[in-house]
Amino acid sequence: MPPPTDREPPVMSNPGAERVKSVKALSRRSVRERTGRFLVEGPQSVREVVRHHPERVVDLYLTAQARSRHADIVAAASAAGLHLHEVSDVVLAAMCDTSTPQGLAAVCRTGTATLDEVLASRPRLLVLLTNVRDPGNAGTVIRGADAAGADAVLVSDASVDVHSPKVVRSTAGSLFHLPLVTGLPVEETVARLRTARIRVLAADGAGAVLLPDVDLAAPHAWVMGNEAWGLAPEVRDLCDEVVRVPIYGKAESLNLAMAATVCLYASAAAHNR
Amino acid sequence: MPPPTDREPPVMSNPGAERVKSVKALSRRSVRERTGRFLVEGPQSVREVVRHHPERVVDLYLTAQARSRHADIVAAASAAGLHLHEVSDVVLAAMCDTSTPQGLAAVCRTGTATLDEVLASRPRLLVLLTNVRDPGNAGTVIRGADAAGADAVLVSDASVDVHSPKVVRSTAGSLFHLPLVTGLPVEETVARLRTARIRVLAADGAGAVLLPDVDLAAPHAWVMGNEAWGLAPEVRDLCDEVVRVPIYGKAESLNLAMAATVCLYASAAAHNR
Repeated sequence: MPPPTDREPPVMSNPGAERVKSVKALSRRSVRERTGRFLVEGPQSVREVVRHHPERVVDLYLTAQARSRHADIVAAASAAGLHLHEVSDVVLAAMCDTSTPQGLAAVCRTGTATLDEVLASRPRLLVLLTNVRDPGNAGTVIRGADAAGADAVLVSDASVDVHSPKVVRSTAGSLFHLPLVTGLPVEETVARLRTARIRVLAADGAGAVLLPDVDLAAPHAWVMGNEAWGLAPEVRDLCDEVVRVPIYGKAESLNLAMAATVCLYASAAAHNR
Repeated sequence: MPPPTDREPPVMSNPGAERVKSVKALSRRSVRERTGRFLVEGPQSVREVVRHHPERVVDLYLTAQARSRHADIVAAASAAGLHLHEVSDVVLAAMCDTSTPQGLAAVCRTGTATLDEVLASRPRLLVLLTNVRDPGNAGTVIRGADAAGADAVLVSDASVDVHSPKVVRSTAGSLFHLPLVTGLPVEETVARLRTARIRVLAADGAGAVLLPDVDLAAPHAWVMGNEAWGLAPEVRDLCDEVVRVPIYGKAESLNLAMAATVCLYASAAAHNR
């Protein structure tokens, strides 16, 4: 290896370095919560955070190959004054949760949106995730909420950590496209939504009202429950209506992400008619 | 262990037995194709095949615990004259792809629906999967097609094997709710659909027509492409229209299963208005 010049910092090549270990430690929820940081892996997600929230990026790590392959990300990151650190493939793999981070990862600050801010923005379409535990489902709902033009995603205190590697991956970048408010107590949140004149609609296979029969023109929030056992009865009781996605065939149900996407697209269609 | 009586066959407890190995071998596509059989694991899927297609069940394996826990399945299976074999937990685990088959598995014949039969039933809503490779996406689309009341799912010759354990699992039983025709050549299939006066709609992020602007009242088939690279241009060119699910927010796209579900539910809404 040639000696580093003044201009180019050395390539990080020691997977046992303290810095590598501290990045890897972000795969643990307790460390994310203590530090307020999490790791974003792969070009798709890194591109979106650099583009939409460069102020949340603490450090960006990339391999030499990724530096030449993803010139757009490098240019945007440099323009935003971000710290770029070149690392070996071995170091990047040691930092990441995925076995194939595709050359890029960024340590970022977790979001800091509050319910006050979201409500002050006069939202028309919101999602409230309660007791959602499966990372893939949670991430896919966030992606669907983004696609349907939701104003924010609210996450209850008993749900999966939306900054875990699997959730971040399944959002396909949508984590950085709309405000996320986390750690919310369900009952209080529903009360605040109603005070803000936002209708609270529970999506549940046991609902009495069919989705096509619901008036979705006014501002509303979809409340989604756990992927296995649905909405808790005490949460259902807090909502203005309990809405069921109709099943036209013999399927027993849709999975959480599919049901949420169908509901959100019905809302989007009503808002964009 | 007490000696078996004349009435009760012995519990299969040797995971090294030839029969166990021949069931386990069904996790390989080549074996499924050669034998025309596949394995259905877990109470949800086993219940659906016993209820809707008992004639396709060759052998049903279950543990003592599952026998008492799933009395409904046992009763339906017995009423249909099926062979029930009690097995130890170790034997069931040795047969199955999942680590937690929950006490039940059934060796079944793969479906034998043909395109002729499907077209003769005058279908109003079909799905054609082309080059879909991810088992989870394929299974979820089949589940969504079932929920939306589609008449059949058609699968191209270059797609994932819909009888693989992961696909079967992700369909959550829907595999047995509607006809599946597999191994279809895309070009010929599209031509036959059009001859049958079924409109052929490609679902693709590059589509020129937005989903809410498409008239879905007449019979039609949704053609879905690969989860990563979308529809092949030569397939798109065969279709009557290339339809895009609108993105109202900043998301780049929906994943295949979400896009398919949104399209299928738009169709169902048009057919059930």
